[in-house]
Amino acid sequence: MKIRFFHARILTMIEGQEIFEGEVWVEDSRILYVGTGKDTEEFFKRTGKTCLIWDEEIDCQGNLLMPGFKNAHTHSGMTFLRSFADDLPLDEWLHEKIFPAEGKLCKEDIYENIRLAVLEYLTSGITSIFDMYIEPEPIAKACEDMGMRCVQASGLNNFTQSLELLEQSFQQMNKEDSLISFRLGFHAEYTCSKELLEGVAALAHKYKAPVYAHMCETEKEVEECRERYGMTPPEFLDSLGIFDYGGGGYHCVYMNENDLKIFEKRGLSVITNPASNLKLASGIAPIQEFLNRNINVAIGTDGPASNNCLDMFREMFLVTGLAKVREKDAAVADAMEVLKMATVNGARAMGLSECDVLAEGKKADIIIIDLNMPNMQPLNHIAKNIVYSGSKQNVKMTMIDGKILYKDGKFYVGCEPEQIYEKVNSIVQRITAE
Amino acid sequence: MKIRFFHARILTMIEGQEIFEGEVWVEDSRILYVGTGKDTEEFFKRTGKTCLIWDEEIDCQGNLLMPGFKNAHTHSGMTFLRSFADDLPLDEWLHEKIFPAEGKLCKEDIYENIRLAVLEYLTSGITSIFDMYIEPEPIAKACEDMGMRCVQASGLNNFTQSLELLEQSFQQMNKEDSLISFRLGFHAEYTCSKELLEGVAALAHKYKAPVYAHMCETEKEVEECRERYGMTPPEFLDSLGIFDYGGGGYHCVYMNENDLKIFEKRGLSVITNPASNLKLASGIAPIQEFLNRNINVAIGTDGPASNNCLDMFREMFLVTGLAKVREKDAAVADAMEVLKMATVNGARAMGLSECDVLAEGKKADIIIIDLNMPNMQPLNHIAKNIVYSGSKQNVKMTMIDGKILYKDGKFYVGCEPEQIYEKVNSIVQRITAE
Repeated sequence: MKIRFFHARILTMIEGQEIFEGEVWVEDSRILYVGTGKDTEEFFKRTGKTCLIWDEEIDCQGNLLMPGFKNAHTHSGMTFLRSFADDLPLDEWLHEKIFPAEGKLCKEDIYENIRLAVLEYLTSGITSIFDMYIEPEPIAKACEDMGMRCVQASGLNNFTQSLELLEQSFQQMNKEDSLISFRLGFHAEYTCSKELLEGVAALAHKYKAPVYAHMCETEKEVEECRERYGMTPPEFLDSLGIFDYGGGGYHCVYMNENDLKIFEKRGLSVITNPASNLKLASGIAPIQEFLNRNINVAIGTDGPASNNCLDMFREMFLVTGLAKVREKDAAVADAMEVLKMATVNGARAMGLSECDVLAEGKKADIIIIDLNMPNMQPLNHIAKNIVYSGSKQNVKMTMIDGKILYKDGKFYVGCEPEQIYEKVNSIVQRITAE
Repeated sequence: MKIRFFHARILTMIEGQEIFEGEVWVEDSRILYVGTGKDTEEFFKRTGKTCLIWDEEIDCQGNLLMPGFKNAHTHSGMTFLRSFADDLPLDEWLHEKIFPAEGKLCKEDIYENIRLAVLEYLTSGITSIFDMYIEPEPIAKACEDMGMRCVQASGLNNFTQSLELLEQSFQQMNKEDSLISFRLGFHAEYTCSKELLEGVAALAHKYKAPVYAHMCETEKEVEECRERYGMTPPEFLDSLGIFDYGGGGYHCVYMNENDLKIFEKRGLSVITNPASNLKLASGIAPIQEFLNRNINVAIGTDGPASNNCLDMFREMFLVTGLAKVREKDAAVADAMEVLKMATVNGARAMGLSECDVLAEGKKADIIIIDLNMPNMQPLNHIAKNIVYSGSKQNVKMTMIDGKILYKDGKFYVGCEPEQIYEKVNSIVQRITAE
């Protein structure tokens, strides 16, 4: 398949490159050409290609092509719990509402829940997710079936999954050129025994692989870890050697000086989830402190039970707005910084080096942002418009791996959205009736 | 014109009333009937109507009809400044960037800027705005031309407008059954002399009318007022008798015990603007303290230069999320409370008693929320879905005063959006070239 996007504005997200007018060509799953469209002779000469016959030519009408957003932390399997239990503190919410409901899920349920999430990702221009849930297999299947790029990190804990499943998934789900990949991980320090965590550390060493987990989400979590081990979660986990090959933490709201140093030293990514942290009253993460230390900051929506939506526009505004109000400084975490977090930094955190920017040879994970809408006008500064006033309404197209999966409000994922809605509603009905 | 909405879910926003399935009938500018559609014989008997011939029948396909959102504080005339100056503290932003640019506007410019804002309001289901800007006349004209319901409060200050213009607008812009109305007001304590404020108080007494102004937006504002008068802004303004007939304050981020008592005693509304308060690093308003005292809390977007979008969905999530994190309590400011702020409380703050709920005889300011989208599924709790995961994408229709102005992504406002975009872009070009 060869697709030509023309009459576009292009934001490659390559450091230092301004928005320019031009074309993007896609061949199968990869980007063939990004440029003004005026240097194509040079391109043909360099690549040895003589001419191209297009399967599809898309007039972008001056709208913006940019890399898709990377949702660097989510639990897609939880869509059935959206607006199911809200207005509760994290601990009560998790143990009294969420875990019992999840206990009733079968693999087929998880598959349907994830399909619903994928639809929503597409409406928000999200082209890769970093997912963590009970069962790795239905996530992989749902994403593969629909065409979503998905990196999983294991949600291993004392109650579900095992080191064996973790290792097996890691071995099986990292195939070349697949939409699906798998990282070592565990749920959180507070749901894992020391022995289990030592097992994770052993795997990290065996495979020289990064490890990811929830970390420092609430004050209570940090305090309880201190009581247990006399250390903060990052201190304790690092003492086990878990981060010897990098990785990252989801949330990172409560971080002390030493935690920050560990993140710097190990090259760990912070994956911030501002909407979830507000809604569960967890707190506001110190984004500017991460930036000051050049720690890689990526953005996640967290799951639909705690957020409750899977919308990178809302998260982007929250990242900048909350950083500004926390630091009492309107200049911090500006729009370009946040756009970088939502794209390039996300790809880096997830290990998706081929999906970060629009450039020749990269994977074709591309979105079109509709600038011909009132919230995007006037065109004083397009990047600021996206971060400060953009919304899902502006997502005109979402392409993953060279395939258009969403365009002008319609889904191209091999099934009707209504079928998925019906199935997820019936899952809730069954579970609440049980 | 008689329009029948059928096969709908209906959220009337009448206290204590649950969502039900039914119909809404509109005749000209008003709601004729709201009900299950099964008691229409009783309706015909009671009203003396025999039969109705519909000009239009709209199958809502199970989607939600609810009152339109009330944007209770905005500066629509500032759309030209969206993404023009950002990442600056309020004081510098206002005096070095915003005021100089605004100084170059003519009335025709303001008219076009407001038309752009109106388009955006429609996409967000906003059916009334409480606007404050330099010139009252172009606001009234733009809103009337496009069909937007607009309450203005004067933006009187030492530099623009006058008490004479204030009184004249107040007398001329409060006609029966018009889309346009006008309230007494002034910009803020810090931009008005004591003499000017005494003049406003005299008008409040003369017309027994409520007064509105920016208030307690930043710590600096409160401190400087204390230095000038030995009182906080609410204390000082109240000492002049400005609030003897009620009114309200925009922002209200920094309020002491006595300020809260004044708001209680005078029945003043708080109009909170959370996105703007984040973006300008002003702070987080104490919403739960207002609610504890039964102070009427409404929601505004503030202007597009400080927010930068005019999106009530983002504001609603911020109101609840920021209240939760401020109080460290995930139970506060729940979804229904916030929906009330965005509709009923807004109408109350603006003096629009005919536009608050869906009921017979009320003005037909109605929106359709699309529930057949992934972010609205499953239907565990529709109100929570709207507040916690809703977005502009879910606004399927916006009707004001019985007229459909926006439906399925198309505008019906007597002009093409592209014409307005072009004009506002040319205003920016002219102003920056000058």
